[in-house]
Amino acid sequence: MTRRRQIYEGKAKILYEGPEPGTIIQYFKDDATAFNAQKKGTISGKGVLNNRISEHLFTLLGTIGIPTHFIRRLNMREQLVRQVEIVPIEVVVRNVVAGSLAKRFGLEEGATLPRTILEYYYKDDALGDPLITDEHISAFGWATQDEMHDIADMAIRINDFMAGLFAGVGIRLVDFKLEFGRLFDGDFSRIILADEISPDGCRLWDLKTDEKLDKDRFRRDLGGEAEAYQEVARRLGLLTDGTV
Amino acid sequence: MTRRRQIYEGKAKILYEGPEPGTIIQYFKDDATAFNAQKKGTISGKGVLNNRISEHLFTLLGTIGIPTHFIRRLNMREQLVRQVEIVPIEVVVRNVVAGSLAKRFGLEEGATLPRTILEYYYKDDALGDPLITDEHISAFGWATQDEMHDIADMAIRINDFMAGLFAGVGIRLVDFKLEFGRLFDGDFSRIILADEISPDGCRLWDLKTDEKLDKDRFRRDLGGEAEAYQEVARRLGLLTDGTV
Ligand SMILES: Nc1ncnc2c1ncn2[C@@H]1O[C@H](COP(=O)(O)OP(=O)(O)O)[C@@H](O)[C@H]1O
Ligand SMILES: Nc1ncnc2c1ncn2[C@@H]1O[C@H](COP(=O)(O)OP(=O)(O)O)[C@@H](O)[C@H]1O
Ligand SMILES: [Mg+2]
Ligand SMILES: [Mg+2]
Repeated sequence: MTRRRQIYEGKAKILYEGPEPGTIIQYFKDDATAFNAQKKGTISGKGVLNNRISEHLFTLLGTIGIPTHFIRRLNMREQLVRQVEIVPIEVVVRNVVAGSLAKRFGLEEGATLPRTILEYYYKDDALGDPLITDEHISAFGWATQDEMHDIADMAIRINDFMAGLFAGVGIRLVDFKLEFGRLFDGDFSRIILADEISPDGCRLWDLKTDEKLDKDRFRRDLGGEAEAYQEVARRLGLLTDGTV
Repeated sequence: MTRRRQIYEGKAKILYEGPEPGTIIQYFKDDATAFNAQKKGTISGKGVLNNRISEHLFTLLGTIGIPTHFIRRLNMREQLVRQVEIVPIEVVVRNVVAGSLAKRFGLEEGATLPRTILEYYYKDDALGDPLITDEHISAFGWATQDEMHDIADMAIRINDFMAGLFAGVGIRLVDFKLEFGRLFDGDFSRIILADEISPDGCRLWDLKTDEKLDKDRFRRDLGGEAEAYQEVARRLGLLTDGTV
């Protein structure tokens, strides 16, 4: 286990070479960062929970026909995924006003948006992940128009499915971040969902109390981060089988 | 003249009620602001030059079929225009990397872009005119899809025409800002070009020396602002008839 080659260490995960070509292992750390890594800390047990939650969501999304990188979970903190070329764009889907959208437009947090908003951010920590438009994506060649079409379509389907799933367990899906990648097959490539979906990159509010069950607890020093992540896993039915 | 009603005083112009319903007068001041009005000053004679330059450009754009608010120049600092409902979006057309684009993406000023980039900013000084995407425009209802289609089409045509015009007089059209408005005809409205086009809202570089002939001289304390604006007017052939 210790001999395998590390490919990358990010803010929340480490990537290792997988057992077969074209695969990699995502190792989920407890490290938490916020505000473009200006704030750093750990949330005890987060890696274990995010690994499990992301497995669950990617598996369910697979059943509705969203192609994903997920192959299988290996252990408490690791999952095997297909290696992709990450599209350097963070896709944010927003149903409710929160975070940077509230700030950017002087809007009150918590207001339901007139319609879902898709935003793209250029994934570059040094630049602070700036908001971008289709014009920048096209001019700088970060993705083709076909790829952006697939990405937008999938993001909207993922949002509908996840909004339903979370509504079913008493949680409001306020917003969330996705990453996509190119899976190559010879000269061709297609877009699949990559990275993770977990309370690290989602805003999840209790439907009745508006209590935050996500990384905003860490961002805003609200305390109870680990408990919030656990509560999300519990509501999704993931704490009953004793694996976490 | 002093009795007419003032409608609005902005950072660079004052609007007065026009002589007939549906018209207004734009009075061009010498006031200059930068960085969202954090920096303030005056550029002596700027109002006179911008009035003249904007008249010239709007008249020429009219000849290629761009509908504009311009009716006629009244005197040194004033022009009569059709009153519109301003679309609260600043349209920025970029041919060369400069200003906030350089900063946002860590790019070097002066590089020609792989293709022209159209950007939209929400016109709101209190919010610092944030960059927006079609998604925000549609979700918040700032303009319809049809309107944005017309705006994008016109912006691209205006860019082609102005790039040619300035190239003809030894100037590189780096980027510029446009505002559009709704001209009502009963229940219907159509989009026309409004506000002004002048060195206040354009980046204009001498083709040979890269010398800046625009408001960046003021923004960056380069000196020679008035001379730069005069040089633009001179090259456009506007200083020969003695009106300025
Ligand atoms: N299937 C995949 N193939 C290759 N890279 C991936 C895949 N899924 C996610 N990644 C990338 O792996 C990294 C995951 O680690 P993370 O801690 O999230 O990094 P970061 O700090 O860059 O967000 C991210 O950079 C993400 O883009
Ligand atoms: N034809 C028009 N009808 C109504 N308003 C206009 C028209 N053309 C421009 N405007 C508006 O008039 C104001 C011009 O003054 P300016 O000093 O540029 O103001 P600002 O500081 O708001 O940019 C702008 O707010 C602009 O949107
Ligand atoms: Mg990440
Ligand atoms: Mg203005």
